[in-house]
Amino acid sequence: MKIGLAQLNYMIGDFNGNFEKMKSAIEKGIAANADLLLFSELSVCGYPPRDFLEFHHFINECENVIHKLAAVAGNKIAIIVGAPSKNPTKHGKDLYNSAYFIEDGKVKFMAHKALLPTYDVFDEYRYFEPNKEFNLVEFKGKKLAITVCEDIWDTGETNPLYRINPVAELAKLQPDILINLSASPFNYKQAAKRIDVIRRNATQFNLPVFYCNCVGAQTELIFDGGSVVMNALGELIDEMPYFEECIRFYDLASTVEGRRSTVDNQQDKSPTKLIHDALVCGIQNYFQKLGFKKAILGLSGGVDSALVMVLAVRALGKENVLSVLMPSQFSTSHSVDDSLKLLENLGSPHKIIPIKEVFDVYDKILQPHFENKPFDVTEENLQARIRGNYLMALSNKFGYILLNTTNKSEAAVGYGTLYGDMCGGLAVLADVYKTQIYEVCNYINKDEEIIPTHILTKAPSAELRPGQKDSDSLPDYDVLDKVLLEYIEHHQGPDEIEQLGFDEKLITRILRMVNRNEFKRHQTPPILRVSPKAFGSGRRLPIVGKYLES
Amino acid sequence: MKIGLAQLNYMIGDFNGNFEKMKSAIEKGIAANADLLLFSELSVCGYPPRDFLEFHHFINECENVIHKLAAVAGNKIAIIVGAPSKNPTKHGKDLYNSAYFIEDGKVKFMAHKALLPTYDVFDEYRYFEPNKEFNLVEFKGKKLAITVCEDIWDTGETNPLYRINPVAELAKLQPDILINLSASPFNYKQAAKRIDVIRRNATQFNLPVFYCNCVGAQTELIFDGGSVVMNALGELIDEMPYFEECIRFYDLASTVEGRRSTVDNQQDKSPTKLIHDALVCGIQNYFQKLGFKKAILGLSGGVDSALVMVLAVRALGKENVLSVLMPSQFSTSHSVDDSLKLLENLGSPHKIIPIKEVFDVYDKILQPHFENKPFDVTEENLQARIRGNYLMALSNKFGYILLNTTNKSEAAVGYGTLYGDMCGGLAVLADVYKTQIYEVCNYINKDEEIIPTHILTKAPSAELRPGQKDSDSLPDYDVLDKVLLEYIEHHQGPDEIEQLGFDEKLITRILRMVNRNEFKRHQTPPILRVSPKAFGSGRRLPIVGKYLES
Repeated sequence: MKIGLAQLNYMIGDFNGNFEKMKSAIEKGIAANADLLLFSELSVCGYPPRDFLEFHHFINECENVIHKLAAVAGNKIAIIVGAPSKNPTKHGKDLYNSAYFIEDGKVKFMAHKALLPTYDVFDEYRYFEPNKEFNLVEFKGKKLAITVCEDIWDTGETNPLYRINPVAELAKLQPDILINLSASPFNYKQAAKRIDVIRRNATQFNLPVFYCNCVGAQTELIFDGGSVVMNALGELIDEMPYFEECIRFYDLASTVEGRRSTVDNQQDKSPTKLIHDALVCGIQNYFQKLGFKKAILGLSGGVDSALVMVLAVRALGKENVLSVLMPSQFSTSHSVDDSLKLLENLGSPHKIIPIKEVFDVYDKILQPHFENKPFDVTEENLQARIRGNYLMALSNKFGYILLNTTNKSEAAVGYGTLYGDMCGGLAVLADVYKTQIYEVCNYINKDEEIIPTHILTKAPSAELRPGQKDSDSLPDYDVLDKVLLEYIEHHQGPDEIEQLGFDEKLITRILRMVNRNEFKRHQTPPILRVSPKAFGSGRRLPIVGKYLES
Repeated sequence: MKIGLAQLNYMIGDFNGNFEKMKSAIEKGIAANADLLLFSELSVCGYPPRDFLEFHHFINECENVIHKLAAVAGNKIAIIVGAPSKNPTKHGKDLYNSAYFIEDGKVKFMAHKALLPTYDVFDEYRYFEPNKEFNLVEFKGKKLAITVCEDIWDTGETNPLYRINPVAELAKLQPDILINLSASPFNYKQAAKRIDVIRRNATQFNLPVFYCNCVGAQTELIFDGGSVVMNALGELIDEMPYFEECIRFYDLASTVEGRRSTVDNQQDKSPTKLIHDALVCGIQNYFQKLGFKKAILGLSGGVDSALVMVLAVRALGKENVLSVLMPSQFSTSHSVDDSLKLLENLGSPHKIIPIKEVFDVYDKILQPHFENKPFDVTEENLQARIRGNYLMALSNKFGYILLNTTNKSEAAVGYGTLYGDMCGGLAVLADVYKTQIYEVCNYINKDEEIIPTHILTKAPSAELRPGQKDSDSLPDYDVLDKVLLEYIEHHQGPDEIEQLGFDEKLITRILRMVNRNEFKRHQTPPILRVSPKAFGSGRRLPIVGKYLES
C-alpha cells in the first residue's frame, strides 16, 4: 500500500483556492499510484477558521468542497480530509472537528476529534462537541485508526488534561496504522516535542504513524509542517521540511513495516534558526495572503528595526521593502549612519524625513495648553507619533503594509508609544525577547556582516530625549528577560520567581509593569507567534484589575 | 430562615478590596439576623479573572480570602461564596468553578459548576473541569441545591448546548431551595431572558429560586445586577436594582413560601434606557477601577461624540470631561457651533485647537515623497491622526483617559482611521449601531434639549474633504444597520440575508467590508458590550482570510 502526505498551505475561508490546491495533490497522488492520500486538520477551510464556524453558509461551503474532492478522487485513490461536520444529534455543540475518509468517491467513514484543545491560542470547545465513540475503518486489508491532532497528545503524563486517551481506545480495536491529521502551530520548542509525542504513540501501541500537518502562516499563527512518518519501533522514517509545502509518498511494506531505516535529512532545529525561518514565513504569508507586495518600516538605527528589515527583505525581496529614517534633534549621528550602512548591505530603497519641523509646530500649538508643565513623556510620545504618521501616510498613499518593530521585552513592560512605534499591520518581533533578538542577528551575521556590528554593540536607546538609554527606565535586558520568561512562559508567580533567586523588589516592579500595560497590548497589531506563550490570542488577561499591581 | 443576597461590584484580582467589601456584607447580614448570605460567582477574585487563573499564586490568594471570610462569618451566619477550587484528582483541568458553602466558620460543602460556557465572551472550559456529580447540602432543615450561573440555563430547549441538565439532576434529590451564584454580563436583551430562565427553573422543578448576580463593569463586560428572588410558582418576589450594589434580606417563610406576592418596583427595561445606563456604568467603573478621574474627547459636531460627551458627564461629572474641538479647513461652521451649544448645555470645559497649521507642514514635508499622487484617503487619515495626536498629547500631559467615539456601524465596515479617530482608552459606543445612537440621544433629550437638535438632524459627515457625507462611502445607515444586525448578531450568511429581502450586491458589499476590516478592529480600544454580540473578545475572526471577500 502506498500512502501519501499532502503538507499544504491553506487560506482560511478560500474554498475555491483550497479545493484547487487539494485537487492538484490528489492528481499527483493518482499519478504516483498512491492508494491513500492524507491532508491536514480542517484543510478544506483552513485552520483556525474561528467564528466563521458559526455560519451555516460556511459549513455548507465546507461540505461542498468535500463532495467535489470525492468526485476528483473517484475510485482512483482514497483520501482523508479534515473538515467540520454537523453533529447529527440535538445535544451538545452543533459541530464536530472531523476527518472524512473518502473511498470510491464516497464518504465511507468519519472520525471526530475527541480531545479539543481549549487553552493558549486554542478555542476548540467553543465550536466543537468532543467525540466519545471510537471505531476503525478497514482499507485494503489494513485497519486504520484515524485521529485528529490533539487526540494523540494525551500520552499518559502524571497530570493529563483529559479524562480519556483516544489512541488507547482505538488500540483496543487492534488497528494496523495510526493516522493523525494535524494543524499544529509552531513554536521554537514544538518540533522536538512533536516527534517525541509521535514516538510515544508508536512505541506504546506498537503502531506505525502517519502524521500530516499543514504549513504556512495564518496571521499570528505559523504552521511549520514537519509532517512525520514513523515505524512501530519509534524510528523516524521521514520528517518533511519545515515552512514549505511538500507532498511525498511512502510504500507501507518497504519503508514502514519490517525494515529499520532512519531519516538522513536532519534539519537544523536550533531555536534561533527556527525563529528566523518562522518569522520570514510569517511575513511572507501575511503579505501574500492579503495580496500585498510591499512593506514599509521605520529604521531607527537600533537592533529591532534592523532585524525586521533583514527579515522583510528575505521574505519580500529587497526592492519591496522601503525603510524610512526619521531623525529628531535627539537622534545620535550613528543612528542614521548605522541604518545607511545596513541599507547598503541589503540594497533596499530608503527615505530620510526628519521630524523636527513638525514637532516644533505641534509644540508651538500645544504649549499654551500645557500650562507650563515641563518636557515629559508627552513630548517623547509625540515624536514617536509623528513618525507613525509619516509611515502610515506613505503606507496609505502607496499601498504598503507597515511592519511594527516592537520586541517582546518592550511589549511586556509597555515600553513603547501607542499610535507611535506601536503602529503597524504586523508585529514581527513582539514574541521575541530583546536578548533573543541579538541571537537571531548573530545568526544572520554568521557568515558575513549583514547587520553592522555597531548596531549590535551599542546600548539600546529610544533617543526621545537627550542622552536617553533604555537602562534609564528598565532593568538590564539580561535580567528583565529572565523574569519575564518565568512570569509569561512558565506561569510562575512572584513567590515562585523569588525562589529562583531574583530580587523581590525587582520582581514586583517588573510584574506590575507587565500587568499595568495590558491596555497597550490590547491595541497592538497581530504578533507573529514563535514561543510557547505569545502576547495575543494565547494570553488573555483583564485590562482593568489589581493583581500584583500595588 | 432569613436569606440575604449581596449584589456587589468586585475588582478583578483585588483580594484585599474584595475581602473588605464581602466582610462588610457579612457584618450587615449578622446585624440583620440573617441565617445565610449569598455572594456571586467567583466573587473573591472578580469575574472574569481570565488567565490569572493559571497562576498558583492567584488560586492561593483566593483560598486565603475564603479562609478569612469563614473566620468573619464564624458561627453567626452561613455564607455561600464563589471562588475557583483545585481539582483534587489528576485528571482533567486543574480547577473547578465552585460555590463554597461555609457554616460554623468551615467549608462544609462545595458545588462545582457543571456547564461551562465557552462561546461569545466566555472561555470557561479554558480553565475549569466540568462537574459531573450532584449533591445537596442540608442547612437548618432545608435542602439546598447550589448551582453556578450557566448551570440553570439549560432549560430543555430543542437544541441544548449541553448533554446534562444540572438542575434536573439536583431535583432528583428533592431539594427545598434552588440557589444560583452568577456573573452574568449585561446585554440589552439579557434582563428579560434571565427572568424567563429563572421562572422556567422555578416552575419546572417547583422550587423557590435565590439568584445572586454581581454588578459593575470589568473593562468591556458590564454586569447589571438585577438579582432575583422567585417563588416556586414562578412569581417574582424581588428583582434588585440594575447597575448598583445592593444587599437585601428575605424571610423564607413569609416572602417565598406559601403566600403569593409580586414585585412592585418594575424597572424601566426598554433597550434604549438600559443601553444608556449600562454605558454610564461602563465609563464610571473603567475610570474608578483604574484610578482615573478625568476624561478627554474630541468633539466633532456629530452625533457620536455628542453622545459620548453626555454619557461621560453623567459618569464622571461635568468638570471632569474636557472636550477638544479641532476644526480643519473642511469643517463646516456648524460643527463648532453645534458643539459649543452642547457644551453650554452641559457646562463642561473645552479647548479649540485647529489642525490646519500642522496639516500644512505635514503636507509640505510629505508632498515630495508622494510622487504627485492626488489627494486621497491618505490626507483624510492624516487629519484624523493629527487630532489623535492632540488628544493623546493632552491626555499624556494631564493624565486624562481619551474616550473613543466610534460607533458599531463604522467599526463594522472600517469607516474610521487607525491611530486617528480610532484612538482611545475605551470605546464607548462601538457596540451601538448608528441608528441606535439616535435613539439613545432622543432618550437623553426626552425632557429637555441637552443635545442640540441640529446635531440629530444634519446628515452624518466625517468632514475630511469638501462637502463629504457618510452616504458617499456607505449605504444608508437604516439599511446598513439591518444587514449588519443579521450578519453580526444573528449569524446569518449571505444567502439567508438575501432571503430576508435585501439586495444581493448590497449584501456582498457590506459583508466584504466587515470581513476586510478585521485588521482595524484588532487594534481598537476595549469596547463596552451592550448587545448580545459585540466586537471584541466575544467575536473572534481571522484577520487574514478570504471568506465572503471576493
